[in-house]
Amino acid sequence: MKFQRIGAPGAERPVLLDGEQAYDLSPLTHDIDGTFLAAEGLSAAATALAQGRLTPLDITGERIGAPIARPQAVWCIGMNYAAHAAESGAEPPSTPVLFFKAPNTVIGPYDDVPIPRGSERTDWEVELAVVIGRRARYLDSPADSMEYVAGYTISNDVSERRFQLEESGGQWSKGKCCEGFNPLGPALIPATELDPGNLRLRSFVNGEPRQDSSTADLIFDVPYLIWHLSRYSVLEPGDLINTGTPEGVALSGRFPYLRPDDVVELEIEGIGRTRQRFRAESA
Amino acid sequence: MKFQRIGAPGAERPVLLDGEQAYDLSPLTHDIDGTFLAAEGLSAAATALAQGRLTPLDITGERIGAPIARPQAVWCIGMNYAAHAAESGAEPPSTPVLFFKAPNTVIGPYDDVPIPRGSERTDWEVELAVVIGRRARYLDSPADSMEYVAGYTISNDVSERRFQLEESGGQWSKGKCCEGFNPLGPALIPATELDPGNLRLRSFVNGEPRQDSSTADLIFDVPYLIWHLSRYSVLEPGDLINTGTPEGVALSGRFPYLRPDDVVELEIEGIGRTRQRFRAESA
Repeated sequence: MKFQRIGAPGAERPVLLDGEQAYDLSPLTHDIDGTFLAAEGLSAAATALAQGRLTPLDITGERIGAPIARPQAVWCIGMNYAAHAAESGAEPPSTPVLFFKAPNTVIGPYDDVPIPRGSERTDWEVELAVVIGRRARYLDSPADSMEYVAGYTISNDVSERRFQLEESGGQWSKGKCCEGFNPLGPALIPATELDPGNLRLRSFVNGEPRQDSSTADLIFDVPYLIWHLSRYSVLEPGDLINTGTPEGVALSGRFPYLRPDDVVELEIEGIGRTRQRFRAESA
Repeated sequence: MKFQRIGAPGAERPVLLDGEQAYDLSPLTHDIDGTFLAAEGLSAAATALAQGRLTPLDITGERIGAPIARPQAVWCIGMNYAAHAAESGAEPPSTPVLFFKAPNTVIGPYDDVPIPRGSERTDWEVELAVVIGRRARYLDSPADSMEYVAGYTISNDVSERRFQLEESGGQWSKGKCCEGFNPLGPALIPATELDPGNLRLRSFVNGEPRQDSSTADLIFDVPYLIWHLSRYSVLEPGDLINTGTPEGVALSGRFPYLRPDDVVELEIEGIGRTRQRFRAESA
């Protein structure tokens, strides 16, 4: 069982997918947002499905949107795989490194991504994305964290390396917030259906392999991150946490940066695969 | 003429202030948010007032909330006054330094601010806050920027310096996003009524002066910032830009950090004054 949002940008409607069959969730909620998730909407939807109360929907040919409504915040963890820290020229961090993407960077999993004007170093980053299900504030320990997770999906934490590293005095967000820089999807997998501890995650550019790692290699795992962030901030239902990317990005010097018409595919075991074509932003 | 949101947290209603008299804006809009601002709501409200179509409201004793609904993003500019960069031990930047506060840090201008658990270095920062009125994307020049401004208000860009500087690998946001760390207000002043170019801005702790500078000393002024950010990202109606703080914060070493029951006041010429009591966050 998984969840998607289907339709034109800004007008997506919520659906539940049971195998290949989609069901309309509109009678239960207007959107897959923090209010729905905090009200245990995912399990309510499962119950409605089991009771035969959902209407099948033919979504053939329709656009697939991001699987959640625009989050209140997109919390991003940097350098959270040791080999990626090394390829970026950094030591592994001793504590989670936090930065942000603007929430309006979130787009659908198959939408085109504009390469920003002036960019020569647009890069991909496959990441396990955690969706928060309950308000999290001063958790006592990582053992409590999983109660606060609604589910998982895949982020492309697209980055422009010159904007990130050379044009903001060392603060990374300027290279993380260009239009369309957070493709998300293809679906939200409920936390009840997936253990995030050891999932293979991979990326491909034009069909050639790039990243290939496992969430078992995360320096700070999902329970640690949620606990840790909750000690500094308040996580809201519907918020997104991009947990960091493994080695194999262009910043390493081993691969070219993205050019117009390049196609990036991202895959995480148990979640699915997304695909974005990159295009030149017209001047 | 200025705009406020009045009532309990999460249930504020919009009002227009004409001198001391408040008028109910509920018939025009449910909130002072991006949709209202993008639809030229501020001038529509002024017209409604001039035509005698607004109902007076007695707001005596009511809580004053942040003057805008929770923004999509809180864009923050660092080190944007030369003397503050110097007191922070940094060179003045050659380009705007961008970081973020989580939108859920925004609270009312007179609300208490919790000093986070474990904090020993909670600091104040008075800042001119710009509210965006129209979607801004790839502006051609700073000369175009002012068409995208809805108005101005005052931010306290509250910061925990250890979290900011020592506990996130150099990325600042972890010390900027604690609960309640962006008191905002007391009112939104329409861009048509205020020139942001030379406004005295001051802060006080327990009545003693701290910061005292002018927006004329901004390294990157308001038109430049909006144009610049629009070249990297898309600014949305209702977004907030904290434009940076002048010298005179505790980080300088000249003043103690904030303790429970300290009172911070922030004043910007032409906008008003806000006041927050700091309190210990109970464990």
